[in-house]
Amino acid sequence: MEEINNIEVVPCTESDYLKPFRVHYNQNGTKKSWDFMRTHDSVSVLIFNTTSHCFVLVKQFRPAVYMCEWEKSKTQPAQSAEQTEEGSAEAAAPASESQEGQSASEGDSSSKWPPASAGVTYELCAGIVDKPDLSLEEIARQEVLEECGYDVPAAKLKRITSYRSGVGVTGAKQTMFYAEVSDDNCVSAGGGEPKEGELIEVVKVPLHEAMTFAYDERIPKTMGVIFSFIWFHNNMSPKYKISTNV
Amino acid sequence: MEEINNIEVVPCTESDYLKPFRVHYNQNGTKKSWDFMRTHDSVSVLIFNTTSHCFVLVKQFRPAVYMCEWEKSKTQPAQSAEQTEEGSAEAAAPASESQEGQSASEGDSSSKWPPASAGVTYELCAGIVDKPDLSLEEIARQEVLEECGYDVPAAKLKRITSYRSGVGVTGAKQTMFYAEVSDDNCVSAGGGEPKEGELIEVVKVPLHEAMTFAYDERIPKTMGVIFSFIWFHNNMSPKYKISTNV
Repeated sequence: MEEINNIEVVPCTESDYLKPFRVHYNQNGTKKSWDFMRTHDSVSVLIFNTTSHCFVLVKQFRPAVYMCEWEKSKTQPAQSAEQTEEGSAEAAAPASESQEGQSASEGDSSSKWPPASAGVTYELCAGIVDKPDLSLEEIARQEVLEECGYDVPAAKLKRITSYRSGVGVTGAKQTMFYAEVSDDNCVSAGGGEPKEGELIEVVKVPLHEAMTFAYDERIPKTMGVIFSFIWFHNNMSPKYKISTNV
Repeated sequence: MEEINNIEVVPCTESDYLKPFRVHYNQNGTKKSWDFMRTHDSVSVLIFNTTSHCFVLVKQFRPAVYMCEWEKSKTQPAQSAEQTEEGSAEAAAPASESQEGQSASEGDSSSKWPPASAGVTYELCAGIVDKPDLSLEEIARQEVLEECGYDVPAAKLKRITSYRSGVGVTGAKQTMFYAEVSDDNCVSAGGGEPKEGELIEVVKVPLHEAMTFAYDERIPKTMGVIFSFIWFHNNMSPKYKISTNV
């Protein structure tokens, strides 16, 4: 799917996106401190196309996921020389690992980098809550339009629930919505905002394959995909028949 | 529940826990870069006590969640002077906000800090995968023992599924297990490892309240709690009756 190459990893001393802070506090009289990161709340949307009876997901290359897989590949027996830091992986920095010209695209078996597919995940359409003037529904509506190309009124978004994500590091609140769309609502191909560097593939998962998809661990995905498919199964099955072979 | 006070937030220039890196790469010929953090994979465990027909969760104060709520409280109308940075929250650093002597415990309405309960979340028993010699099941078993006080053989842990978490920043893999325990397996009160600074309260959610609990947004929780309760509902309901009032 993707061609990823010229990969270079460097320590990040100053980031516009990752800003670690430390909070010192007393808990029940005991002095403690905790390192955390500021982040935005977010919304995600389970999109169901009633024309094709498909769920609409997004698929994209995630550098953070890819780097996880790269890290694991280093500790495999074939690279035993790099196993020494295993067990203290938090401190095991890649420092400055450069593989200029190396390719991580599919089929390049000579590379020490995993194939690009190792960093690709299936996710719900989602976005951060960074527009204080807009409701969560409005922000979700914009993401559905930008990422997946469906124009649906905010009022048609049904709130599923909310929860905390990354409680150890960010602790942001995520709110999940459900949107029913039809082919008539499709106004563009979606794919995200190129000017924001988004390169998103819109993929459809047929309803009858959804539960198998949800529990197939060979398909890399977020918990939101699994949870929302099961939510649909439990709550929308009177309306739409869904296979229950899991 | 908790008394939290003497809260001080400082920028974190060097952390043993949060280590930002930057990866430069070419995607389909376009130069890109992405800031990410290294982290461990993790396991989580849905624990069901067959004696009391309760789910066993952990409840703890999460500084990252608390700081999210603190951040939001700053942008509320009552503190309008601090609204100026709204809209660029990623860059809106708390810098050095010190409230020495201030209390965030319940009932202290004079504090600008939210009540401690704003940072408390319900979660599945969970832990990071940082012992390369142990299987995921063994690591999950240890967490069940340390956090919740139940001694169950690793072989009794049933794998539910796995997925990616924090795909934007960490991308680590989480694997979820299901453990059936009985009061006979209870060998300690749990509560985590005090030497690691863990202060964990073990809480039970009766089976018949589980679905209401899962979808009650006033109860702060992780998606893992919601998903696993519903997984149980769908997959264990032939074995244990569960209320389906949601």
